[in-house]
Amino acid sequence: MEVLVPFSTDRPKSRLSTVLAPDERARFARAMLLDVLDAVGAAGGEPCVLATGAVDADLPCPVTIDDRPLTDAVNAALDARLGASGAERVAVVMADLALATPDALRELFGAGREADLAIAPGRGGGTNAFVAGHPAFEVDYHGASYLDHRRIADEIGASVAVVDSHRLATDVDEPADLAELLIHDEADDDEGARAPRWLREAGFALDATDGRVGVKRE
Amino acid sequence: MEVLVPFSTDRPKSRLSTVLAPDERARFARAMLLDVLDAVGAAGGEPCVLATGAVDADLPCPVTIDDRPLTDAVNAALDARLGASGAERVAVVMADLALATPDALRELFGAGREADLAIAPGRGGGTNAFVAGHPAFEVDYHGASYLDHRRIADEIGASVAVVDSHRLATDVDEPADLAELLIHDEADDDEGARAPRWLREAGFALDATDGRVGVKRE
Repeated sequence: MEVLVPFSTDRPKSRLSTVLAPDERARFARAMLLDVLDAVGAAGGEPCVLATGAVDADLPCPVTIDDRPLTDAVNAALDARLGASGAERVAVVMADLALATPDALRELFGAGREADLAIAPGRGGGTNAFVAGHPAFEVDYHGASYLDHRRIADEIGASVAVVDSHRLATDVDEPADLAELLIHDEADDDEGARAPRWLREAGFALDATDGRVGVKRE
Repeated sequence: MEVLVPFSTDRPKSRLSTVLAPDERARFARAMLLDVLDAVGAAGGEPCVLATGAVDADLPCPVTIDDRPLTDAVNAALDARLGASGAERVAVVMADLALATPDALRELFGAGREADLAIAPGRGGGTNAFVAGHPAFEVDYHGASYLDHRRIADEIGASVAVVDSHRLATDVDEPADLAELLIHDEADDDEGARAPRWLREAGFALDATDGRVGVKRE
Protein backbone atom coordinates (compact mmCIF):
# COMPACT_ATOMS: atom_id res chain seq x y z
CA MET A 1 0.00 0.00 0.00
CA GLU A 2 1.30 3.44 -0.87
CA VAL A 3 1.62 5.65 2.19
CA LEU A 4 1.80 9.39 1.68
CA VAL A 5 3.65 11.28 4.40
CA PRO A 6 2.93 15.03 4.18
CA PHE A 7 5.82 17.18 5.35
CA SER A 8 6.01 20.94 5.61
CA THR A 9 9.43 22.44 4.88
CA ASP A 10 8.09 25.92 5.59
CA ARG A 11 8.47 26.88 9.29
CA PRO A 12 7.90 23.36 10.61
CA LYS A 13 6.78 22.78 14.21
CA SER A 14 6.13 26.42 15.06
CA ARG A 15 4.34 25.43 18.27
CA LEU A 16 7.69 24.20 19.58
CA SER A 17 9.16 27.69 19.22
CA THR A 18 9.19 28.21 22.99
CA VAL A 19 11.68 25.38 23.44
CA LEU A 20 13.50 25.02 20.09
CA ALA A 21 15.17 27.54 17.76
CA PRO A 22 14.08 27.57 14.10
CA ASP A 23 17.03 25.50 12.83
CA GLU A 24 16.52 23.03 15.69
CA ARG A 25 12.85 22.66 14.83
CA ALA A 26 13.79 21.92 11.22
CA ARG A 27 16.31 19.26 12.27
CA PHE A 28 13.94 17.71 14.80
CA ALA A 29 11.14 17.63 12.22
CA ARG A 30 13.41 15.81 9.77
CA ALA A 31 14.41 13.30 12.45
CA MET A 32 10.73 12.58 13.12
CA LEU A 33 10.04 12.26 9.39
CA LEU A 34 12.81 9.69 8.99
CA ASP A 35 11.50 7.70 11.99
CA VAL A 36 8.00 7.71 10.51
CA LEU A 37 9.29 6.58 7.12
CA ASP A 38 11.18 3.72 8.80
CA ALA A 39 8.08 2.64 10.73
CA VAL A 40 5.92 2.78 7.59
CA GLY A 41 8.40 0.63 5.72
CA ALA A 42 8.73 -1.86 8.58
CA ALA A 43 4.92 -2.14 8.65
CA GLY A 44 4.90 -3.13 4.99
CA GLY A 45 3.91 0.24 3.55
CA GLU A 46 5.53 1.97 0.60
CA PRO A 47 6.21 5.49 1.80
CA CYS A 48 6.19 8.57 -0.41
CA VAL A 49 6.89 12.01 1.06
CA LEU A 50 4.48 14.74 0.00
CA ALA A 51 6.52 17.85 0.75
CA THR A 52 5.83 21.55 0.35
CA GLY A 53 9.41 22.06 -0.88
CA ALA A 54 12.76 20.32 -1.25
CA VAL A 55 13.62 18.25 1.83
CA ASP A 56 17.16 18.65 3.12
CA ALA A 57 17.62 14.99 4.07
CA ASP A 58 18.66 11.70 2.56
CA LEU A 59 15.21 10.17 2.19
CA PRO A 60 14.70 6.44 1.64
CA CYS A 61 11.70 6.95 -0.65
CA PRO A 62 10.27 9.10 -3.46
CA VAL A 63 9.29 12.72 -2.82
CA THR A 64 6.46 14.63 -4.47
CA ILE A 65 6.62 18.41 -4.17
CA ASP A 66 3.31 20.28 -3.85
CA ASP A 67 3.41 23.72 -2.27
CA ARG A 68 -0.33 24.07 -1.82
CA PRO A 69 -1.96 23.94 1.62
CA LEU A 70 -2.17 20.47 3.19
CA THR A 71 -5.83 19.84 2.37
CA ASP A 72 -5.40 20.70 -1.33
CA ALA A 73 -2.20 18.73 -1.72
CA VAL A 74 -3.61 15.61 -0.06
CA ASN A 75 -6.86 15.78 -2.04
CA ALA A 76 -4.92 16.08 -5.30
CA ALA A 77 -2.79 13.09 -4.31
CA LEU A 78 -5.87 11.03 -3.36
CA ASP A 79 -7.57 11.93 -6.65
CA ALA A 80 -4.52 10.97 -8.65
CA ARG A 81 -4.35 7.59 -6.99
CA LEU A 82 -7.91 6.47 -6.20
CA GLY A 83 -9.28 8.13 -9.33
CA ALA A 84 -6.90 8.18 -12.26
CA SER A 85 -4.48 5.42 -11.34
CA GLY A 86 -7.12 3.03 -10.03
CA ALA A 87 -5.25 2.26 -6.79
CA GLU A 88 -7.47 0.32 -4.41
CA ARG A 89 -6.43 2.30 -1.39
CA VAL A 90 -3.89 4.81 -0.19
CA ALA A 91 -2.76 5.81 3.27
CA VAL A 92 -1.78 9.21 4.63
CA VAL A 93 0.37 9.29 7.76
CA MET A 94 1.54 12.55 9.32
CA ALA A 95 5.28 13.15 9.53
CA ASP A 96 5.21 14.12 13.21
CA LEU A 97 3.91 10.78 14.51
CA ALA A 98 7.26 10.09 16.08
CA LEU A 99 5.78 7.51 18.46
CA ALA A 100 4.36 5.44 15.60
CA THR A 101 5.54 1.84 15.69
CA PRO A 102 5.30 -0.77 12.93
CA ASP A 103 2.70 -2.57 15.09
CA ALA A 104 0.47 0.49 15.36
CA LEU A 105 0.75 1.17 11.63
CA ARG A 106 0.08 -2.48 10.79
CA GLU A 107 -3.17 -2.21 12.72
CA LEU A 108 -4.10 0.89 10.72
CA PHE A 109 -3.22 -0.71 7.40
CA GLY A 110 -5.11 -3.88 8.34
CA ALA A 111 -8.20 -1.87 9.30
CA GLY A 112 -7.92 -0.03 5.98
CA ARG A 113 -8.15 -3.31 4.08
CA GLU A 114 -11.53 -4.05 5.72
CA ALA A 115 -13.21 -0.63 5.74
CA ASP A 116 -13.58 2.13 3.13
CA LEU A 117 -11.94 4.50 5.59
CA ALA A 118 -9.72 3.55 8.51
CA ILE A 119 -8.87 6.54 10.62
CA ALA A 120 -6.61 7.16 13.61
CA PRO A 121 -7.83 10.26 15.44
CA GLY A 122 -5.27 12.57 16.98
CA ARG A 123 -5.49 14.12 20.40
CA GLY A 124 -7.53 17.29 19.90
CA GLY A 125 -9.67 15.86 17.14
CA GLY A 126 -7.18 15.92 14.30
CA THR A 127 -6.70 13.16 11.73
CA ASN A 128 -3.24 11.77 12.30
CA ALA A 129 -3.40 8.86 9.89
CA PHE A 130 -5.91 7.21 7.62
CA VAL A 131 -6.34 4.68 4.86
CA ALA A 132 -8.90 5.56 2.19
CA GLY A 133 -10.30 3.09 -0.29
CA HIS A 134 -13.32 5.07 -1.49
CA PRO A 135 -12.74 7.28 -4.58
CA ALA A 136 -15.14 9.98 -3.35
CA PHE A 137 -13.38 10.49 -0.02
CA GLU A 138 -11.65 13.81 0.40
CA VAL A 139 -9.97 15.50 3.31
CA ASP A 140 -10.55 18.78 5.12
CA TYR A 141 -7.84 19.31 7.70
CA HIS A 142 -9.27 22.48 9.20
CA GLY A 143 -10.47 22.30 12.84
CA ALA A 144 -11.66 18.99 14.31
CA SER A 145 -10.93 17.11 11.13
CA TYR A 146 -11.60 13.71 12.70
CA LEU A 147 -15.27 14.67 13.08
CA ASP A 148 -15.37 16.21 9.60
CA HIS A 149 -13.81 13.12 8.03
CA ARG A 150 -16.33 10.85 9.72
CA ARG A 151 -19.13 13.08 8.44
CA ILE A 152 -17.68 13.02 4.92
CA ALA A 153 -17.48 9.22 5.08
CA ASP A 154 -21.12 9.07 6.17
CA GLU A 155 -22.19 11.35 3.34
CA ILE A 156 -20.53 9.21 0.67
CA GLY A 157 -21.63 5.94 2.23
CA ALA A 158 -18.12 4.84 3.14
CA SER A 159 -17.70 2.32 5.97
CA VAL A 160 -15.44 3.53 8.76
CA ALA A 161 -13.04 1.79 11.15
CA VAL A 162 -11.52 3.81 13.96
CA VAL A 163 -8.04 2.85 15.12
CA ASP A 164 -7.65 3.46 18.83
CA SER A 165 -3.92 4.03 19.35
CA HIS A 166 -2.16 6.35 21.76
CA ARG A 167 0.92 6.23 19.56
CA LEU A 168 -0.98 7.28 16.46
CA ALA A 169 -2.99 9.84 18.44
CA THR A 170 0.17 11.61 19.56
CA ASP A 171 1.38 14.08 16.97
CA VAL A 172 4.44 15.80 18.36
CA ASP A 173 3.86 19.50 18.06
CA GLU A 174 3.98 21.07 21.48
CA PRO A 175 6.37 20.82 24.43
CA ALA A 176 4.25 18.31 26.38
CA ASP A 177 4.51 15.94 23.43
CA LEU A 178 8.29 15.88 23.79
CA ALA A 179 7.82 14.25 27.19
CA GLU A 180 5.61 11.64 25.55
CA LEU A 181 8.35 10.85 23.07
CA LEU A 182 11.00 10.49 25.78
CA ILE A 183 8.76 8.38 28.03
CA HIS A 184 8.01 5.79 25.35
CA ASP A 185 11.54 5.80 24.04
CA GLU A 186 12.83 5.08 27.53
CA ALA A 187 10.24 2.35 28.05
CA ASP A 188 10.92 0.59 24.78
CA ASP A 189 14.62 1.19 24.34
CA ASP A 190 14.38 1.60 20.56
CA GLU A 191 17.96 2.43 19.74
CA GLY A 192 17.22 3.18 16.11
CA ALA A 193 14.85 6.07 16.74
CA ARG A 194 16.32 9.38 15.63
CA ALA A 195 13.88 11.89 17.12
CA PRO A 196 14.23 10.94 20.81
CA ARG A 197 18.00 10.59 20.36
CA TRP A 198 18.11 14.06 18.81
CA LEU A 199 16.14 15.43 21.78
CA ARG A 200 18.46 13.84 24.33
CA GLU A 201 21.53 15.08 22.47
CA ALA A 202 19.97 18.55 22.48
CA GLY A 203 19.83 18.32 26.26
CA PHE A 204 16.21 17.39 26.87
CA ALA A 205 15.29 15.05 29.70
CA LEU A 206 12.14 14.09 31.56
CA ASP A 207 11.29 16.29 34.50
CA ALA A 208 8.71 15.44 37.15
CA THR A 209 9.72 18.00 39.74
CA ASP A 210 6.36 19.79 39.77
CA GLY A 211 4.43 16.56 40.12
CA ARG A 212 3.57 16.28 36.45
CA VAL A 213 5.88 14.80 33.86
CA GLY A 214 7.31 17.29 31.38
CA VAL A 215 10.71 18.02 29.88
CA LYS A 216 13.60 20.19 30.96
CA ARG A 217 16.60 21.22 28.91
CA GLU A 218 20.12 21.16 30.35
CA MET B 1 -11.79 -10.81 36.54
CA GLU B 2 -12.16 -8.41 39.44
CA VAL B 3 -11.54 -4.83 38.40
CA LEU B 4 -10.71 -2.29 41.08
CA VAL B 5 -11.67 1.27 40.26
CA PRO B 6 -9.93 3.72 42.64
CA PHE B 7 -11.99 6.85 43.31
CA SER B 8 -11.08 9.85 45.40
CA THR B 9 -13.97 11.51 47.22
CA ASP B 10 -11.64 14.14 48.64
CA ARG B 11 -11.36 17.20 46.35
CA PRO B 12 -11.69 15.22 43.11
CA LYS B 13 -10.44 16.67 39.80
CA SER B 14 -8.71 19.71 41.29
CA ARG B 15 -6.96 20.42 37.97
CA LEU B 16 -10.37 21.24 36.52
CA SER B 17 -10.84 24.02 39.07
CA THR B 18 -10.35 26.71 36.41
CA VAL B 19 -13.49 25.58 34.59
CA LEU B 20 -15.64 23.78 37.20
CA ALA B 21 -16.76 24.72 40.71
CA PRO B 22 -16.06 22.21 43.52
CA ASP B 23 -19.58 20.74 43.55
CA GLU B 24 -19.52 20.49 39.76
CA ARG B 25 -16.21 18.66 39.85
CA ALA B 26 -17.67 16.18 42.33
CA ARG B 27 -20.71 15.56 40.13
CA PHE B 28 -18.65 15.27 36.97
CA ALA B 29 -16.24 12.85 38.68
CA ARG B 30 -19.17 10.66 39.73
CA ALA B 31 -20.57 10.71 36.19
CA MET B 32 -17.20 9.53 34.87
CA LEU B 33 -16.99 6.84 37.55
CA LEU B 34 -20.40 5.47 36.58
CA ASP B 35 -19.42 5.45 32.89
CA VAL B 36 -16.21 3.56 33.70
CA LEU B 37 -18.11 1.02 35.82
CA ASP B 38 -20.55 0.45 32.95
CA ALA B 39 -17.70 -0.06 30.46
CA VAL B 40 -15.91 -2.47 32.82
CA GLY B 41 -19.07 -4.50 33.25
CA ALA B 42 -19.79 -4.52 29.50
CA ALA B 43 -16.24 -5.76 28.90
CA GLY B 44 -16.86 -8.73 31.19
CA GLY B 45 -15.09 -7.37 34.26
CA GLU B 46 -16.45 -7.43 37.80
CA PRO B 47 -15.99 -3.88 39.05
CA CYS B 48 -15.32 -2.93 42.66
CA VAL B 49 -14.88 0.72 43.66
CA LEU B 50 -11.90 1.41 45.92
CA ALA B 51 -12.91 4.76 47.41
CA THR B 52 -11.26 7.08 49.88
CA GLY B 53 -14.63 7.73 51.50
CA ALA B 54 -18.36 7.14 51.10
CA VAL B 55 -19.47 7.72 47.50
CA ASP B 56 -22.61 9.79 47.07
CA ALA B 57 -23.97 7.78 44.13
CA ASP B 58 -26.05 4.71 43.44
CA LEU B 59 -23.23 2.37 42.46
CA PRO B 60 -23.84 -0.89 40.60
CA CYS B 61 -21.06 -2.74 42.43
CA PRO B 62 -19.36 -3.24 45.80
CA VAL B 63 -17.34 -0.43 47.38
CA THR B 64 -14.27 -0.82 49.56
CA ILE B 65 -13.32 2.22 51.64
CA ASP B 66 -9.60 2.88 52.20
CA ASP B 67 -8.58 6.42 53.03
CA ARG B 68 -4.86 5.89 52.52
CA PRO B 69 -3.00 7.42 49.56
CA LEU B 70 -3.63 5.74 46.21
CA THR B 71 -0.40 3.73 46.12
CA ASP B 72 -0.92 2.25 49.60
CA ALA B 73 -4.57 1.46 49.03
CA VAL B 74 -3.94 -0.26 45.69
CA ASN B 75 -1.00 -2.24 47.05
CA ALA B 76 -3.08 -3.45 49.99
CA ALA B 77 -5.85 -4.48 47.60
CA LEU B 78 -3.39 -6.29 45.30
CA ASP B 79 -1.85 -8.10 48.27
CA ALA B 80 -5.22 -9.17 49.58
CA ARG B 81 -6.18 -10.63 46.20
CA LEU B 82 -3.02 -11.98 44.57
CA GLY B 83 -1.52 -13.04 47.89
CA ALA B 84 -4.06 -14.09 50.49
CA SER B 85 -7.08 -14.92 48.33
CA GLY B 86 -5.12 -16.63 45.59
CA ALA B 87 -6.79 -14.73 42.75
CA GLU B 88 -5.00 -15.36 39.48
CA ARG B 89 -5.13 -11.75 38.40
CA VAL B 90 -6.73 -8.44 39.23
CA ALA B 91 -7.20 -5.28 37.22
CA VAL B 92 -7.03 -1.65 38.29
CA VAL B 93 -8.76 0.92 36.09
CA MET B 94 -8.81 4.61 36.95
CA ALA B 95 -12.19 6.25 37.52
CA ASP B 96 -11.49 9.18 35.19
CA LEU B 97 -11.05 7.12 32.01
CA ALA B 98 -14.30 8.50 30.69
CA LEU B 99 -13.37 7.60 27.10
CA ALA B 100 -12.90 3.93 27.95
CA THR B 101 -15.03 1.64 25.83
CA PRO B 102 -15.79 -2.04 26.40
CA ASP B 103 -13.61 -2.80 23.34
CA ALA B 104 -10.60 -0.98 24.76
CA LEU B 105 -11.03 -2.68 28.15
CA ARG B 106 -11.49 -6.09 26.53
CA GLU B 107 -8.14 -5.63 24.86
CA LEU B 108 -6.57 -4.79 28.22
CA PHE B 109 -8.18 -7.76 29.96
CA GLY B 110 -7.18 -10.06 27.10
CA ALA B 111 -3.57 -8.87 27.26
CA GLY B 112 -3.66 -9.44 31.01
CA ARG B 113 -4.53 -13.10 30.50
CA GLU B 114 -1.36 -13.59 28.44
CA ALA B 115 1.22 -11.51 30.33
CA ASP B 116 2.08 -11.16 34.02
CA LEU B 117 1.43 -7.44 33.69
CA ALA B 118 -0.67 -5.74 31.03
CA ILE B 119 -0.44 -1.99 31.26
CA ALA B 120 -2.13 0.90 29.50
CA PRO B 121 0.09 3.98 29.81
CA GLY B 122 -1.55 7.35 30.25
CA ARG B 123 -0.57 10.52 28.47
CA GLY B 124 2.21 11.99 30.57
CA GLY B 125 3.59 8.66 31.69
CA GLY B 126 0.95 7.68 34.20
CA THR B 127 -0.53 4.21 34.61
CA ASN B 128 -4.16 4.49 33.66
CA ALA B 129 -5.07 0.83 33.78
CA PHE B 130 -3.37 -2.50 34.32
CA VAL B 131 -3.94 -6.17 34.92
CA ALA B 132 -1.51 -7.85 37.30
CA GLY B 133 -1.11 -11.59 37.62
CA HIS B 134 2.20 -11.70 39.49
CA PRO B 135 1.98 -11.78 43.31
CA ALA B 136 5.15 -9.69 43.74
CA PHE B 137 3.94 -6.79 41.61
CA GLU B 138 3.27 -3.58 43.46
CA VAL B 139 2.44 -0.08 42.35
CA ASP B 140 4.10 3.29 42.86
CA TYR B 141 1.90 6.02 41.41
CA HIS B 142 4.31 8.87 42.00
CA GLY B 143 5.76 10.60 38.89
CA ALA B 144 6.09 8.72 35.60
CA SER B 145 4.56 5.58 37.06
CA TYR B 146 4.41 3.83 33.70
CA LEU B 147 8.20 3.72 33.61
CA ASP B 148 8.39 2.73 37.28
CA HIS B 149 5.89 -0.07 36.80
CA ARG B 150 7.80 -1.44 33.85
CA ARG B 151 11.00 -1.36 35.93
CA ILE B 152 9.24 -3.12 38.82
CA ALA B 153 8.00 -5.79 36.41
CA ASP B 154 11.53 -6.27 35.09
CA GLU B 155 12.91 -6.60 38.61
CA ILE B 156 10.47 -9.34 39.58
CA GLY B 157 10.77 -11.14 36.24
CA ALA B 158 7.17 -10.42 35.21
CA SER B 159 6.34 -10.46 31.50
CA VAL B 160 4.80 -7.22 30.26
CA ALA B 161 2.25 -6.39 27.54
CA VAL B 162 1.65 -2.74 26.71
CA VAL B 163 -1.83 -1.78 25.55
CA ASP B 164 -1.67 1.05 23.03
CA SER B 165 -5.02 2.82 23.33
CA HIS B 166 -5.78 6.50 23.01
CA ARG B 167 -8.99 5.95 24.97
CA LEU B 168 -7.19 4.32 27.88
CA ALA B 169 -4.35 6.86 27.67
CA THR B 170 -6.75 9.75 28.16
CA ASP B 171 -7.47 10.35 31.82
CA VAL B 172 -9.77 13.33 32.08
CA ASP B 173 -8.19 15.73 34.49
CA GLU B 174 -7.53 19.03 32.77
CA PRO B 175 -9.60 21.29 30.51
CA ALA B 176 -8.08 20.01 27.25
CA ASP B 177 -9.29 16.53 28.17
CA LEU B 178 -12.89 17.77 28.22
CA ALA B 179 -12.57 18.49 24.49
CA GLU B 180 -11.35 14.94 23.99
CA LEU B 181 -14.44 13.61 25.74
CA LEU B 182 -16.81 15.75 23.65
CA ILE B 183 -15.04 14.90 20.37
CA HIS B 184 -15.31 11.14 20.83
CA ASP B 185 -18.81 11.35 22.21
CA GLU B 186 -19.90 13.30 19.14
CA ALA B 187 -18.14 10.86 16.82
CA ASP B 188 -19.60 7.75 18.42
CA ASP B 189 -23.01 8.98 19.49
CA ASP B 190 -23.03 6.91 22.69
CA GLU B 191 -26.30 8.04 24.20
CA GLY B 192 -25.75 6.20 27.43
CA ALA B 193 -22.61 8.05 28.46
CA ARG B 194 -23.20 10.26 31.48
CA ALA B 195 -20.00 12.33 31.60
CA PRO B 196 -20.25 13.98 28.15
CA ARG B 197 -23.98 14.50 28.67
CA TRP B 198 -23.26 16.16 32.00
CA LEU B 199 -20.70 18.42 30.30
CA ARG B 200 -23.12 19.45 27.57
CA GLU B 201 -25.87 20.12 30.08
CA ALA B 202 -23.42 22.26 32.02
CA GLY B 203 -22.97 24.35 28.88
CA PHE B 204 -19.72 23.00 27.48
CA ALA B 205 -19.22 22.72 23.74
CA LEU B 206 -16.31 22.24 21.38
CA ASP B 207 -14.59 25.42 20.30
CA ALA B 208 -12.11 25.68 17.45
CA THR B 209 -12.11 29.43 17.06
CA ASP B 210 -8.40 29.84 17.80
CA GLY B 211 -7.44 27.09 15.35
CA ARG B 212 -7.05 24.42 18.00
CA VAL B 213 -9.91 22.41 19.38
CA GLY B 214 -10.82 23.17 22.98
CA VAL B 215 -14.00 23.74 24.94
CA LYS B 216 -16.05 26.81 25.70
CA ARG B 217 -18.83 27.19 28.24
CA GLU B 218 -22.02 29.01 27.40
